[in-house]
Parts: sequence; structure tokens; C-alpha cells
Amino acid sequence: MTALPIAVDAMGGDRAPKEIVRGARQAMEAGIPVVLVGRRGDLPIVDGIEVIDASEVIEMHDDPAQGVRRKKDSSLVRAAEAVRDGRAAAMVSAGNTGATMASALLRMGRIKGVSRPAIATPGGTPTVLLDAGANAECQPEWLVQFAQMGTVFARHRFAIDEPKIGLLSIGEESSKGNTLVKETHERLMSAPGVRFVGNVEGRDIMTSAVDVVVTDGFTGNVVLKTLEGGLQAIASALLGAFASAPEYKEPADALLPALLPLYETLDPDTYGGAMLLGVDGVCIISHGSSGARAIVNAIRVGREMVDADLVGKLRAAVTRD
Amino acid sequence: MTALPIAVDAMGGDRAPKEIVRGARQAMEAGIPVVLVGRRGDLPIVDGIEVIDASEVIEMHDDPAQGVRRKKDSSLVRAAEAVRDGRAAAMVSAGNTGATMASALLRMGRIKGVSRPAIATPGGTPTVLLDAGANAECQPEWLVQFAQMGTVFARHRFAIDEPKIGLLSIGEESSKGNTLVKETHERLMSAPGVRFVGNVEGRDIMTSAVDVVVTDGFTGNVVLKTLEGGLQAIASALLGAFASAPEYKEPADALLPALLPLYETLDPDTYGGAMLLGVDGVCIISHGSSGARAIVNAIRVGREMVDADLVGKLRAAVTRD
Repeated sequence: MTALPIAVDAMGGDRAPKEIVRGARQAMEAGIPVVLVGRRGDLPIVDGIEVIDASEVIEMHDDPAQGVRRKKDSSLVRAAEAVRDGRAAAMVSAGNTGATMASALLRMGRIKGVSRPAIATPGGTPTVLLDAGANAECQPEWLVQFAQMGTVFARHRFAIDEPKIGLLSIGEESSKGNTLVKETHERLMSAPGVRFVGNVEGRDIMTSAVDVVVTDGFTGNVVLKTLEGGLQAIASALLGAFASAPEYKEPADALLPALLPLYETLDPDTYGGAMLLGVDGVCIISHGSSGARAIVNAIRVGREMVDADLVGKLRAAVTRD
Repeated sequence: MTALPIAVDAMGGDRAPKEIVRGARQAMEAGIPVVLVGRRGDLPIVDGIEVIDASEVIEMHDDPAQGVRRKKDSSLVRAAEAVRDGRAAAMVSAGNTGATMASALLRMGRIKGVSRPAIATPGGTPTVLLDAGANAECQPEWLVQFAQMGTVFARHRFAIDEPKIGLLSIGEESSKGNTLVKETHERLMSAPGVRFVGNVEGRDIMTSAVDVVVTDGFTGNVVLKTLEGGLQAIASALLGAFASAPEYKEPADALLPALLPLYETLDPDTYGGAMLLGVDGVCIISHGSSGARAIVNAIRVGREMVDADLVGKLRAAVTRD
């Protein structure tokens, strides 16, 4: 049996279509079959890559729900339909995140039993953070499912047998936090399939204290963007410091080989994007600024998650009240 | 008229009493009168520094409310009483943050009209973040008052005439965010004395996009600790990279003069702690790990806020629905 291709939204992202197509071509050269989805006329012809034609584009600033409703022939909607219809094994997009979620949710549907899909992201380190922004307001029982889905994801994405799950709060004590956290803490204590180690704080996210950090999508999104901004601020402060006097140029150059692997570790492109857990198909959400390297990694992750039957394992893992 | 001294909780913090007393002495040598509050027998005798005796200590792990209720002769409670009774101009503590808030709130009381006090912190950069953890759950009208108090604080603490206020959310559009954010956004549009520039995201906190970031105490505390953890992770990754091979030692040493000012900017000790806004007195909350330098800076900030009559200006700034 030939493996189904990964559907890549060629129109989504700040650097689309050029960098997206470049990434797709590299993936294909690495042996992963892909199919591009987009306006055929706008795409460079790439030998051996099929194109699913889609005449519309949901722009970055479009309202997600409206975009999906009105632009039925958009690359995002068509990519999700390709997965639904068995023409593709997974979808990858660096476009409008909200519209990516909406397309996947409306076209693929939810996994039976899942209350709400959540975005899981490596968040700058291999620690998985979810929900990173799919649900601005959450119920405790959703967070329990996020913990169950995060467990399965960390197991197959990062090969951690029994991932440690932490609940993001403002103190380790179970008495600390807001109502959502306190109620979720209670439920996680007895949640099936979850190795719950208790509350964690913001400072634990970039450590190995836990493998999965569970939170609502508002807090998760703020945390993710705060880290992103913080790392960017430091990177530019470092570059500024190194450029502040001519005598720093030589030692800075000498340190470059030491700094590059660090940069690689912290660069979100290394991790190939986030994954929407809970929809009935594999959907990888890449950063809007994704270049070819991020897209290749996203395609690779999509392929791995399909091969691991992640969706089937998520279906088996979530419990309902 | 002789200036009233700043009351310094000599027993609070991981490095108390030694580093706290050292900081107090340095402040005195710099011309700022201080009074130490704590167990006289445990404190080194410092010429010229008065001690307010307090036989008990609220420990870092004590329950804040219980601690204040049961340990009436604790250094924290006595420090707050010294401000209330006109024996001190302000209080500074690196001890149990919750107990510091509770002591200040219960002994000094709230400024008339203030619904809830909030913790304002420079959060790693001069951008003021509030609430950084006083209220895990908030009402929209409290956040409006936080914006008003943050405006006054930024004006007097960082000499910004008309501080730009941003509301922390997960997108710039007013339609994005959770219910609290959406309702607060509406109210901030017409809030007196607030230069509201709209929603901001996590990545704006470490930039100069706005001067004050308003959020609930749960999100604020998570953000603050996330940044702290992120900066720490990068600092140790940098040190690790520089130590990864002997040939990096020389260039790393050569770059030290460029890196030190950066370290200084990012070191929370530089800013001398957070301030509890909304209580009827000046209360500076220092980091639990504070050394002498952080304490001197906290005392200095306390002095400046007293001299600026910050409490009087906060009283004039808050509106009630």
C-alpha cells in the first residue's frame, strides 16, 4: 500500500506560497509524499507533487468562522476535506490559526467523546503545553481530556512512556489558583491514564519538571507568546551587546559554534509546529512565519503522527464524565 | 521635619536576616532612614538603625491569612502596623508574598474606593505588569481600577507622563479573549484617566509597545514566572554553551563586559521589587531570593513612592462604578 500524501496548505503563512512549496519539495525529496493545496496558477510547478486546486485563500486577518463558512473553495477547507475524504493522511498549514482549527473541526469533525479539541505545542522546549489557544474559556472536564490527550501526544511525539502531567497554576499547593484550576486539580487526582504530579508554575515550563503542562487556552496562548517575546528580546539584546563595540566582533564570532545549537533548540521551527488534538484526523498548525525548514519539520511530524495512529490512540484515551 | 523611616521586615526572605540587614544598612549609609522589624536577638546590631521588636515570624510556607491572624507579633504584621501608626513611611518585605499582602491589607486597610489591591511589577523590563498575583479571579471593574492605578504608578515610578495601557489578551482584536477580557476592554474604552491603546499579547510584554499591561492576577503571576523561568533557562543554556569546550573560555571572558549590563537589565533585583497598589500605605514586595542589593533598591523605591505621595495620587485616580 502506498502511503497517502500529507496535504500542505500552500497559501497559508507570511511566506506563502514560496517557502511552503520549498518545504514541501524538500519533504518529498526526503521520501515523504505530499500534496499541495492552493491556487494552481500561483504555485511554482514542482515535478512529482500533485496539486489540489483551491481558488480561495483565507487571509491571516480574516475571521476564522466566517472565513471557513464563506470561502468553501479555500486551500484550508480543501486541505481538511482531503483528509476527511481519504485523499490525504494529514494536513499542515502555516495560515490563519483560528481558521485552521475551524476547517479541521468542521470538515474532519471531533473524535467521538472529545468535548473540545486543544492545541498542543512544544512551546520552545520539548515540554508539551496545551491548550495553547484553541479555547479561551474552559471547563474542568475539558482540561482533564487535555491531560489525557497530552499524555498520548507526549508518548508518541517525544517517546516518553509515562509522561508527567502538571497543571499550570500560581503555586504548587492544591489550594492555590482560580476556580477552574482548583476544580481541575480535584478531577486530575483520579483521572484515568494520567500521571498527574500536581500544580506547576510558569517557571517550570522551560524545565524538565514535567513533560506536559495543562492549562486553559487563554493562559496557554499568553504563556506561549510571552516566552516567544522573551526569547526574541534576549536574542536581540545579545546581538546588540555583541555589536556594541568593535572589539566584541572577534570573540562573538568565535562563540558562534557554541551558540548555534542553543539557537536551534530554542527556535520554534525546529519542532515543526503545534498539533490540534481531538479532531478526527492529523492537523499540524505551523507558525505564521514558517520557512521551508519549519514546513519540512511539520510535514515530518504529521507523517509520524499518522504512522503512530495518534488519532486512534487519542480515541482510546479520552474518558467522558 | 525628619523623614519617617522605611520599615524593613528583617525576617522575611530566603536570605533573611543577614542579607536584609545588610541591605538596610546600605540604604541608611545612602541617607535613607530605615527601621528593622524582627526578633531583636536574631539581628546583628547595626549602629544607628532602630529595631521594632517582633517575636514571631510568618514562614514562607505558612498560610497567609492564618499566619497574619495567628502571628500577631510577627515582623510582617508589626511592619504594617508601623506604617498604619505613623512610625514608618513605608514597608518592605522579601517574605511570604501572600502574608505581606494580607498584613498590609488588614493593618493599613484599602484606599477608599479601591475594590481590590493589585501587585504591580516591572516584570523584567520597565513595562509595568499588574495584577501580578494578588487576585486569582477578577471582575472587569477591578481591572479598570488596575489600569488607573497602573497609570499613576508608571507615571511616578518611571516618569512616563501619559503611560500607554494595554490589556493582555490572545489577539489585538477586541473580539478576542475570554469573557473577562472582552468586558474589561469595553469598560477601558471609556475609563477616566486611562490612555488605553487596546489589547496586547504576551510577546508585547518585553517590548516598549505599552507602558502598563493590565491582566488578572492568575494570568499575571503565570506570565511573570514564565518569563523568570525562561530567562533563567537561557542564562544557564548560555553558560553551558560557553563551558562546552575549552576554546570558548577566552572569547566568553572577552564578551563579559558586553554581557554584564544586559544581565543587570534583566535581573529583577535591579528593580527593587513589586508594589502593592491600593492599600492605604506604601508596601514594597521583594523577591524571596532578595539579597542586599535588591533590598536597597526596594527601600529606595519605597522612599520615592512616599515622597511622590503615590497613595494620595492613587486615591484621586480610582473611579467607582
